[in-house]
Amino acid sequence: MNVKNPRTGEFDYEIFPLSNEELKNIIIDLREAQGEWKNQTLQFRIDTLKAWQKALEEQKESLIEALTIDTGRKLETLIEVDFLLNSVDEWCDLAKVFFENPVKEVSTIPSLNKEIQFVPYQVIGMVTPSTFPLFYAILDAIPALLSGCAVIVKPSELTPRFTEVLVNSFTELPQIGDIFSFINGGAETVLELTKLCDKICFTGANNSAKDILRVANESLNPVDLELGGKNIAIVSETAEIERATSAILWGSAFNAGQSCNSIESVYVHRNIYHQFLSRLVGKANLLEFTFPNIENGQIGPVISEKQVEKINELLADAINKGAVIKAGNRECEALGGGYYCRPTVLINVTPSMKLLKEEHLAPLLPVITFFNVDEIAQINEINFEGSVAIFAGGEQEALQIAEKINVQRVSINDVAISALLPEINIERFNKFLKKKTLLINNQLEKSNWWY
Amino acid sequence: MNVKNPRTGEFDYEIFPLSNEELKNIIIDLREAQGEWKNQTLQFRIDTLKAWQKALEEQKESLIEALTIDTGRKLETLIEVDFLLNSVDEWCDLAKVFFENPVKEVSTIPSLNKEIQFVPYQVIGMVTPSTFPLFYAILDAIPALLSGCAVIVKPSELTPRFTEVLVNSFTELPQIGDIFSFINGGAETVLELTKLCDKICFTGANNSAKDILRVANESLNPVDLELGGKNIAIVSETAEIERATSAILWGSAFNAGQSCNSIESVYVHRNIYHQFLSRLVGKANLLEFTFPNIENGQIGPVISEKQVEKINELLADAINKGAVIKAGNRECEALGGGYYCRPTVLINVTPSMKLLKEEHLAPLLPVITFFNVDEIAQINEINFEGSVAIFAGGEQEALQIAEKINVQRVSINDVAISALLPEINIERFNKFLKKKTLLINNQLEKSNWWY
Repeated sequence: MNVKNPRTGEFDYEIFPLSNEELKNIIIDLREAQGEWKNQTLQFRIDTLKAWQKALEEQKESLIEALTIDTGRKLETLIEVDFLLNSVDEWCDLAKVFFENPVKEVSTIPSLNKEIQFVPYQVIGMVTPSTFPLFYAILDAIPALLSGCAVIVKPSELTPRFTEVLVNSFTELPQIGDIFSFINGGAETVLELTKLCDKICFTGANNSAKDILRVANESLNPVDLELGGKNIAIVSETAEIERATSAILWGSAFNAGQSCNSIESVYVHRNIYHQFLSRLVGKANLLEFTFPNIENGQIGPVISEKQVEKINELLADAINKGAVIKAGNRECEALGGGYYCRPTVLINVTPSMKLLKEEHLAPLLPVITFFNVDEIAQINEINFEGSVAIFAGGEQEALQIAEKINVQRVSINDVAISALLPEINIERFNKFLKKKTLLINNQLEKSNWWY
Repeated sequence: MNVKNPRTGEFDYEIFPLSNEELKNIIIDLREAQGEWKNQTLQFRIDTLKAWQKALEEQKESLIEALTIDTGRKLETLIEVDFLLNSVDEWCDLAKVFFENPVKEVSTIPSLNKEIQFVPYQVIGMVTPSTFPLFYAILDAIPALLSGCAVIVKPSELTPRFTEVLVNSFTELPQIGDIFSFINGGAETVLELTKLCDKICFTGANNSAKDILRVANESLNPVDLELGGKNIAIVSETAEIERATSAILWGSAFNAGQSCNSIESVYVHRNIYHQFLSRLVGKANLLEFTFPNIENGQIGPVISEKQVEKINELLADAINKGAVIKAGNRECEALGGGYYCRPTVLINVTPSMKLLKEEHLAPLLPVITFFNVDEIAQINEINFEGSVAIFAGGEQEALQIAEKINVQRVSINDVAISALLPEINIERFNKFLKKKTLLINNQLEKSNWWY
């Protein structure tokens, strides 16, 4: 498989998907190595991961270089690499808290004396997207390894270069190389991986998720999905316009909108609409492409060529149906072989436009007015998988609006929902462990049930 | 659909599966009523459920009668009805603990200020089996209702009679009748329900689960599965033989083996094999059918006619492959129109026999010897979804054996795994609630990220 460079448009890298036989053998080896790994102490696993962190620190420059070529952008790459290197310490601290505080469960049956143990899954397969390639490849892998699992990661075939550096970092550390593996491939490899692993963690688009579920259902193997949803912002009449426009524009345009948490539309109270729109357009027009110099500007290239087509199609559909562009262009711009999308503010937007229905992962910002917040609660664009950023003068008012909107994540006077991404959360360990319940020294024979 | 009486073999009851249109309308009504129900206080929901409990108490005799006809057995019916009536109070107490102690989550990002809220699913569909019809129809329904969901239950088409009494108990209590519904039907109704509800909770066989998953995948709606697994007993050289045989026989033959937690085979240390076998056979031969008098004996009829065929097939397969029956018969016995299966102890059992591979839900007890417990850890019959009862002289020895066996539930010197069934566990509330995270008054603008 040839891999395109998102800045030059050239196919300058090649990956070699594994045969099913090769994949099977890798997983057999991982499963065997996991037998020892899970029996090590937590401290041993922490020490191993910290040794790896050190090895990776030495290859930091190569990692930045590879990831920058993969994604065509620099600033976000630096954030990703720093996140990865710092996250190891944080995960190790959390692992101590998690594993050294045994879970207590009390039964309502007085004679039942329970003890809870956790058993790691043997081999966890992770299928990760191109939006933040390093971040997603690592977010689940580190807590899974600390939990005692072996891990095999298949990154997006659009952004595979960075994994070479990770694999190189294992060279002198067989204790981690034996239980942590990266493979390349496309949709077929994903399905084969789903068949062979004990659990699949998938981050990406709904359609690929359905293919994975179809395969996983045959084995009834568990699947963990982190899917996209539509994320919106709501700006009430009392909101601070400067604050709201700056935050929302960042939530829309950071990483050129290529984030499953990016803000995809804004609902603004009619009474402040004109002020809001003029400040938003003014700020959007100040943003610049990171072209020709990758170190300047804010908006990098669109990583996926399919995504370029999709953005152009959504814009054409909206314009045909009457939308008016107040900032940005009618389509992505071709520059030096790559494609770039301007922060694009649209008005006269109607629910029939695809832009409001499909996750667009681009810095497209349709602005829609409302008069009563109940109108918003009804709109189709909202479902529980999404998130909403609410801007209002007071916290109480914002919380009342939040009450009406049925979404998974809300942020108040901020776009922190977009920044929740790099969150290291102790609950994540539960994904990699099976709960084993032991019932010890019970007294059921006293119930006269036994024969 | 005509429904057979498991004691008489007569089709003496009829159910009328709903049309898709009717089902759709019921769910629309439930969804509307749920809007009010979820906004009530917890105390209101508790009071409503306790009023229902009282109404049901008055119809206890009718409930026992209907459930006894459904299942053909009396003792287990009394246990189920008492469980139901007592469970309401316990769930209400747990709900107070669960909902009045807000969940705290601390972020590793210092500026992220989090608040966690829980949002009930609107309409939960429950598909429940014939093994303990009342128990499974109610186990999830009560905590789901307390959580603020509306609930629609489709019981097994083999045992639908008892739901009539439940529906009657709503007559004077519209506040519960509006958000709690029972419907009849077969596999098609299950799939339609899966399409229409916001979450499906299924208890039953793996094959039906796969059909449900196939439909749920289209909508990506969540599914909660409680599936069967193979449950075994392990008896070490040091075990008390009297205790082990009494407990294991009960774990195998209670409810005529029709329980997803019933013990389906025993592994006994070679050095105590003969003593163990003779005590087990002796005790098994003392058990009697509840025929002709339902009040006498321990072993009721097999509820499902398909199950009778399955039992006969598994026994024939085992006998053909060399198994020897030491207690019980070569097939189910036809008595008065019903079918009954004797507690059946088999030896000379080999791994090729279907008996060891397929969940049999019958009082069939193959006895297999081992010398070293590591032999057992390798056998195919064990998978994590199952459970194991370990009998050993000392707790430490039993825990060491447990360490080696990869199953979800273990009981030590007891068959409490089989009795875990009626457990009322506070964690169950989590199944009916979606977690909503609010991020309040954060300070992301200070990170200089905003545009």
